[in-house]
Amino acid sequence: MSTRQASYVFLKGHGTENDFVLLPDHDGSVHGDLSAERVRALCDRRAGIGADGVLRVIRLGSSVAPVACPEEARDEPSRREITDTDLPEWFMDYRNADGSVAEMCGNGIRVFARHLYDEGLVPASEPVRIATRAGVKTVTRDGAQFTADLGISTIHGETKVSVGDRTWPALHVVVGNPHAAVLLEPGADLTSVGSLAEEPAYDETLYPEGVNVEFVVRRGPDHVAMRVHERGSGETRSCGTGACAAAVAAAGGVPGRWRVDVPGGTLEVSRDADGRVFLSGPAVIVARGETSL
Amino acid sequence: MSTRQASYVFLKGHGTENDFVLLPDHDGSVHGDLSAERVRALCDRRAGIGADGVLRVIRLGSSVAPVACPEEARDEPSRREITDTDLPEWFMDYRNADGSVAEMCGNGIRVFARHLYDEGLVPASEPVRIATRAGVKTVTRDGAQFTADLGISTIHGETKVSVGDRTWPALHVVVGNPHAAVLLEPGADLTSVGSLAEEPAYDETLYPEGVNVEFVVRRGPDHVAMRVHERGSGETRSCGTGACAAAVAAAGGVPGRWRVDVPGGTLEVSRDADGRVFLSGPAVIVARGETSL
Repeated sequence: MSTRQASYVFLKGHGTENDFVLLPDHDGSVHGDLSAERVRALCDRRAGIGADGVLRVIRLGSSVAPVACPEEARDEPSRREITDTDLPEWFMDYRNADGSVAEMCGNGIRVFARHLYDEGLVPASEPVRIATRAGVKTVTRDGAQFTADLGISTIHGETKVSVGDRTWPALHVVVGNPHAAVLLEPGADLTSVGSLAEEPAYDETLYPEGVNVEFVVRRGPDHVAMRVHERGSGETRSCGTGACAAAVAAAGGVPGRWRVDVPGGTLEVSRDADGRVFLSGPAVIVARGETSL
Repeated sequence: MSTRQASYVFLKGHGTENDFVLLPDHDGSVHGDLSAERVRALCDRRAGIGADGVLRVIRLGSSVAPVACPEEARDEPSRREITDTDLPEWFMDYRNADGSVAEMCGNGIRVFARHLYDEGLVPASEPVRIATRAGVKTVTRDGAQFTADLGISTIHGETKVSVGDRTWPALHVVVGNPHAAVLLEPGADLTSVGSLAEEPAYDETLYPEGVNVEFVVRRGPDHVAMRVHERGSGETRSCGTGACAAAVAAAGGVPGRWRVDVPGGTLEVSRDADGRVFLSGPAVIVARGETSL
């Protein structure tokens, strides 16, 4: 790039091909409020770097870091231990490719954790606690596998989604963020759903801020495959919280461990007797550099 | 990325959203033969950096640089002046996103030239001559506009192309590389052609190594719009030699200057009385860094 242009550091990484631009901005001085326009420019796959979303890496105490633990998160049983004195150092400021703000991203937080480990920003041998708009999450590392504790995930009832002129019953599942998971009949071909490039239609009363939609098919006793439309990003190669929603929906709320095949690879989801879900899989950083976008 | 992994320098840039990963490899020691597998990994839009193609920046005299001026290029009138003593310093080693080798890329060479100017690898105020597999090309700079002399472009006859069950007559145009340009009726909607994600069917006897296919519609006296399927890359937001082929086909071989709208922006094509075509438009570098891909 021209040396006359201002530039700043970025990294690119992915988890099962759900890809992200990471923006180190430890004290918030590089990107300030981080405009939706800049997020869109970075995520543009031709004119920009290209990604499903942006992960700003920012200290929780910095002046521009959004509130990490809203009251509703603290009211949840799994969040009650959060106090001002044990808040984590790092906040994952996640944005969708369209520039909108999002609570959480299950693959994103695994890539975010890998970055913190790689850069020596957290101790190498300990689980790392990361603040998000959906509360504090813990990620542990086992070699190249990164497991995120995504908290309590529950089925909240039933809903419907539509693609074109077809409508399916779906389960309303919350995994920090909202999901509508459609269970297709066993043996169904996931391509038969048609294009997920456009956003499926959903109950806007139930999901006033949009919803992630999964189409799920069983492949075996503890094994499902899925496709996903992520709100704000379109169809993606993988969605971590979507994989959790798919497993929780397929299991009907029973604890266990599932293999979840996504178009970009394979994830593992486990759910304990308390309803807490853990998402495991690879997380890689493929590039690091500077951009003037 | 992990500091244990080998990494090398890359840049990302685009011309009217036809995007490229540039690989500086001045003496050929970084990438050697540059495998198709590495090119595919770099161009992967989720697991890699993402691009329509790779531009390796390599000195012509380096041991692994392919032959820049094949005999057939020297036999062409516009190439007769090329001798071993005035070969350019830099060779554009262009690869398609699928890893295949390609002769030339009209947007790519403009981005390549911008990189050489930006890095001070060529004198700032002079046109730069660049060796390609389709012969030596000259690029000139006027502010943010980069104009590539793409040599003689001529209509070689008629052919046909098909998308799904529809077939159109097309003109066989050579602009260093082969094109089949379909002239739609005036006022036609370019989206009516349907998806260009899959390769259109073409005459494999005429194009044994594949062909770039343009769908072209007039917008005014010296103004066309187009969509393109690039061999090896799929539908792209822009194709420089494709824009030239579209203008030459629309003009029926008459000299002039055309505005060519592509999905990713606007290019200008001029053709002189000798049949030489010049492609003008923006070229930008958006990022520079290191990758372990």
